[in-house]
Amino acid sequence: VAIRASILGASGYSGAELLRILSRHPHVKVDRLFAAKAAGTAVESLYPWFRDGRGNVFEEYTGETTLESDVVFIALPSGYAMHVVPALLERGAKVIDLGGDFRLQDTKSYLTYYKEEHAATDLLKNAVYGLPEWNKSAIADSKLIANPGCYPTSVILPLAPLLKAGLIKSEGIVINSLSGVSGAGRKADLGLSFSEVNESVKAYKVGNHQHVPEIASVLEDLSGSAVSFSFAPHLIPITRGIYTTISAMLEPGATEDDVLRAYHEHYVNAPFVNARKNHIPEIKHVLYTNNIEIGFSAYPGTGQLLIHSVIDNLVKGAAGQAVQNMNIMFGLNECEALN
Amino acid sequence: VAIRASILGASGYSGAELLRILSRHPHVKVDRLFAAKAAGTAVESLYPWFRDGRGNVFEEYTGETTLESDVVFIALPSGYAMHVVPALLERGAKVIDLGGDFRLQDTKSYLTYYKEEHAATDLLKNAVYGLPEWNKSAIADSKLIANPGCYPTSVILPLAPLLKAGLIKSEGIVINSLSGVSGAGRKADLGLSFSEVNESVKAYKVGNHQHVPEIASVLEDLSGSAVSFSFAPHLIPITRGIYTTISAMLEPGATEDDVLRAYHEHYVNAPFVNARKNHIPEIKHVLYTNNIEIGFSAYPGTGQLLIHSVIDNLVKGAAGQAVQNMNIMFGLNECEALN
Amino acid sequence: VAIRASILGASGYSGAELLRILSRHPHVKVDRLFAAKAAGTAVESLYPWFRDGRGNVFEEYTGETTLESDVVFIALPSGYAMHVVPALLERGAKVIDLGGDFRLQDTKSYLTYYKEEHAATDLLKNAVYGLPEWNKSAIADSKLIANPGCYPTSVILPLAPLLKAGLIKSEGIVINSLSGVSGAGRKADLGLSFSEVNESVKAYKVGNHQHVPEIASVLEDLSGSAVSFSFAPHLIPITRGIYTTISAMLEPGATEDDVLRAYHEHYVNAPFVNARKNHIPEIKHVLYTNNIEIGFSAYPGTGQLLIHSVIDNLVKGAAGQAVQNMNIMFGLNECEALN
Amino acid sequence: VAIRASILGASGYSGAELLRILSRHPHVKVDRLFAAKAAGTAVESLYPWFRDGRGNVFEEYTGETTLESDVVFIALPSGYAMHVVPALLERGAKVIDLGGDFRLQDTKSYLTYYKEEHAATDLLKNAVYGLPEWNKSAIADSKLIANPGCYPTSVILPLAPLLKAGLIKSEGIVINSLSGVSGAGRKADLGLSFSEVNESVKAYKVGNHQHVPEIASVLEDLSGSAVSFSFAPHLIPITRGIYTTISAMLEPGATEDDVLRAYHEHYVNAPFVNARKNHIPEIKHVLYTNNIEIGFSAYPGTGQLLIHSVIDNLVKGAAGQAVQNMNIMFGLNECEALN
Repeated sequence: VAIRASILGASGYSGAELLRILSRHPHVKVDRLFAAKAAGTAVESLYPWFRDGRGNVFEEYTGETTLESDVVFIALPSGYAMHVVPALLERGAKVIDLGGDFRLQDTKSYLTYYKEEHAATDLLKNAVYGLPEWNKSAIADSKLIANPGCYPTSVILPLAPLLKAGLIKSEGIVINSLSGVSGAGRKADLGLSFSEVNESVKAYKVGNHQHVPEIASVLEDLSGSAVSFSFAPHLIPITRGIYTTISAMLEPGATEDDVLRAYHEHYVNAPFVNARKNHIPEIKHVLYTNNIEIGFSAYPGTGQLLIHSVIDNLVKGAAGQAVQNMNIMFGLNECEALN
Repeated sequence: VAIRASILGASGYSGAELLRILSRHPHVKVDRLFAAKAAGTAVESLYPWFRDGRGNVFEEYTGETTLESDVVFIALPSGYAMHVVPALLERGAKVIDLGGDFRLQDTKSYLTYYKEEHAATDLLKNAVYGLPEWNKSAIADSKLIANPGCYPTSVILPLAPLLKAGLIKSEGIVINSLSGVSGAGRKADLGLSFSEVNESVKAYKVGNHQHVPEIASVLEDLSGSAVSFSFAPHLIPITRGIYTTISAMLEPGATEDDVLRAYHEHYVNAPFVNARKNHIPEIKHVLYTNNIEIGFSAYPGTGQLLIHSVIDNLVKGAAGQAVQNMNIMFGLNECEALN
Repeated sequence: VAIRASILGASGYSGAELLRILSRHPHVKVDRLFAAKAAGTAVESLYPWFRDGRGNVFEEYTGETTLESDVVFIALPSGYAMHVVPALLERGAKVIDLGGDFRLQDTKSYLTYYKEEHAATDLLKNAVYGLPEWNKSAIADSKLIANPGCYPTSVILPLAPLLKAGLIKSEGIVINSLSGVSGAGRKADLGLSFSEVNESVKAYKVGNHQHVPEIASVLEDLSGSAVSFSFAPHLIPITRGIYTTISAMLEPGATEDDVLRAYHEHYVNAPFVNARKNHIPEIKHVLYTNNIEIGFSAYPGTGQLLIHSVIDNLVKGAAGQAVQNMNIMFGLNECEALN
Repeated sequence: VAIRASILGASGYSGAELLRILSRHPHVKVDRLFAAKAAGTAVESLYPWFRDGRGNVFEEYTGETTLESDVVFIALPSGYAMHVVPALLERGAKVIDLGGDFRLQDTKSYLTYYKEEHAATDLLKNAVYGLPEWNKSAIADSKLIANPGCYPTSVILPLAPLLKAGLIKSEGIVINSLSGVSGAGRKADLGLSFSEVNESVKAYKVGNHQHVPEIASVLEDLSGSAVSFSFAPHLIPITRGIYTTISAMLEPGATEDDVLRAYHEHYVNAPFVNARKNHIPEIKHVLYTNNIEIGFSAYPGTGQLLIHSVIDNLVKGAAGQAVQNMNIMFGLNECEALN
């Protein structure tokens, strides 16, 4: 019997990617597709490649909507999920939220970075941070997954094993990330228009990006000690993909081989993580995959370790990781539909 | 003494290009810069390269605004100029409208294609179509210039000499144009966002583009007989530039050399037009210039003449041509500030 | 038992796409991967997403190479396949050539357009033009498939039904095509470098492109009468995709509904063809799919029919169509691994 | 009387930009244009916008070439200039080398990073590093200018004032730079082809880029003490522009206002430098200008100062800066032809 899966926010970029992946999933039946602005229009008009012969139409999700889905993916801007998740859980659905509402346990931090009071604080303790490479068993037991942010995925996976193993200092970390434009969502916004973005680059939200507390708290959880870093995200003229370059100080005596060993130990059973020494990854190598490629080397003469990571922001950074979480929640092979 | 020039719509792409060109014009003093949404902000915040030490600020243009400019450029969406031009002319300014309000003498056609009743019909007879390569003396005597559309510039300049000389048939002409995204203006619009436009192409407004009656009426004026053509504009992922490919049937006996001769005769004194036989132009060759490059050849075995033309839509297709018109109106060398 | 499939030219763009599709094909086992320049290097070093645990290495294919594959895909520049196909067929392999060597029955035409004498003329009569929507049963019986060119696929599928049904005139057809850069293959070439191609457009090979005789001869075969057209291919700054816009004269009395009916009749069983009236397709709708989207409308006042078609040049225009052909040759569902 | 200026390497991207700037320079007459591969072809065929009516043709520069230019720009790959500069100086020309041959006083370092023995070591002491904002008077007196590298320009201008004023620590500096593809020069190279570069990002030469010793030695010269930093250049899919993001530790007590003051003091007479507090620059703001925009802020909670700088790699990073140097060498306003 198939898992009935619905999507809230099916007309956005993460929603589209979810639909693409779920459509080829052997154990999933796409149930209902919600998209407020597109409500009433045929799914095929937006996604001509999606023709299941059932005449699917986007619907509007309201307080009255009755759902019989086994799992609901919420692919909407942060601030929405916290209002609808309680009812969805009550109706027995498992929920995977691709937004930020359940990623921060600290509600003050939520208010600071998301500019809104949290509306479902009692659910926070039940939410599991859906990074399968670190939280697999908790994910398997959970009904509410906070799917990680795209930048945090590209930062935490390379840093956590090294911090936990004590190979790098937890202070003085410098993180530079470059993101494709789809990361900002599908919307009319002058700053995202082709003529503004093309042939240019700009950093943005340096020092106040909402992924900063997510990275900080998760790294602290995973490594056991506080971490201090700067994070500079940049918008570059590509549609998909994230390139993250990290500088960290190696602890005295720590070597490149120690680093490689830490990655191998932690990710021996992680099918989507590939870490290599003296290697420089490229975004094109992971596009349309759920993989993260990590390359690193000790920078000559400075004591710094330079780490590069690449992901497809819409796959491992969003929809792919969400399906990976769903697979784990339903006892399937975590790679199902993702290879 | 310098010509005092003001711009209405100075925060758009054509407005920016006007400012760039006028700033280096030896006989122009940039007077006032109007931009409704940006009103009150420093010009330098939008254009860091523009620092004239006078602390220019964008202003809002209203019915009350008193202007002492010698020339006013209107770089706003069509439908605006017809409301403000009467007052500007009364105050003695010469006006160059980069929009479509004064390009069509036929007000029914205006209503059909611009979806609005024309509000200044009595001025239409005074408006001169600002294509300097054909209307130079009328431009010199005019106070109101309808600056040509970007597509029409790329279409009329290559076709008019051949139609006038009777070298091609006036029916069965097929026009395909590719435009950069800046041609759609500077605005928040999902359809213009990077993630929607990048790595894609789409034709649009096929059969009902507002430049169709402009091309038709001007070609008829210049050549003396009606012309029948299809026009398919396409949006492609570049910021600037237009590529137009035209197919027309050669009249019996007409040769490539006849075509070249017609171009040479008509454009012998046109410093921005360059036509070559058996040549294929490229957009990059004209970017940031006021040039149009034309290449053509007889297609083997079909009787068709294939013509390609390229312009920078913001220069020869808008701001550059506007300054060329201004130069002519004020008795200057038409190339001033444009080489 | 799995079909053993090998690729000659596995390091090119079509080769990469073949590998991607075949890797997820439930009835195929990727056998050997040949790539002359990359010979000896790990497949994973070029394609990090390809890890089958068998340590695949690119090999060089020589006259001595012994192959036990059931099917061999040749994804190499034209002029190569004709030298290796005879031996491959002798060893019992079925061959699908993605190049141009077996697409033209006329060897004079081959010499003219491919600048080389044909080296396997006796095999031409056995080669089947691999356009499944028209030649399905011949493909099923064949051992040598000439996989169609990318441009011809985008041109023939929309034109053939209309010519056959006598809805459009066979003369005066005007074809404009826009292609992504991957269509030119993977090679060091100044004209394909980013800085030359980006933010520009150029037509090329107008009047002498090697796909002209292919389009002409196939359309004549399928429709039963000679066709006269011009073909202007343009290089635009996208990686993948083809956009084709065609103008043809409607026969007196022929309507848009007749056109739609012709498409429906011919493509009722064609799962990858989707034709719509008064519709304008976009490249992004078919990227990474084997689909062709066709949109058309009668152009007002000219008697012309304007048709647009879009494909992914590496999928329906190359690797996807090749796998579709393979599926048919081996008695599988033609959609296998392509949805 | 005009300065006669010639260019060696006139068909490359820096050469093109030099020609563009020099063509509009009121005190310069473009003399001869050398380009080995393009020798014998019309300049207009490569640069249709360049028509001076004298029928210029690219020439090959050889040991026999006699030049009567007042200044010669060498815009060729590093390793070439050191062989021709001695003869050029002997003939009385002033030389501005846009390559790396005269930037490093340390010939061992040259060998390490440029993989070649230096061939004109005795000239190194006469070469002046052409960074006008720091070396103006030495440039005015020099006959041989080592024009700075593009990355170093974007790094040294923001760092030097802060190091000299003791506002940041000279260790633990982390430099990330993003460069457009034109920075790699105009050549046939698979790694620079559109399909490889587009929609991707890769870091490269991390730890061994030839600009590392240039940055290190110049910063040490200007600030008086050794500096330790990592430098990670990245190739991104834009044609022009460099985006540099730097992290440095503020010295205890140093504030953002101190930083701003240091910039103002050092660059008060530098017309092309614009530094702003709590500002994030964008590449598009400096394209086709000789400006560098610098923005900075103290990163909250880490003691780090984050600095961003943007330049057009072909203007301030190459040809524009070269003309700025020429202007100074010939006693002209340094802005001539650059505004």
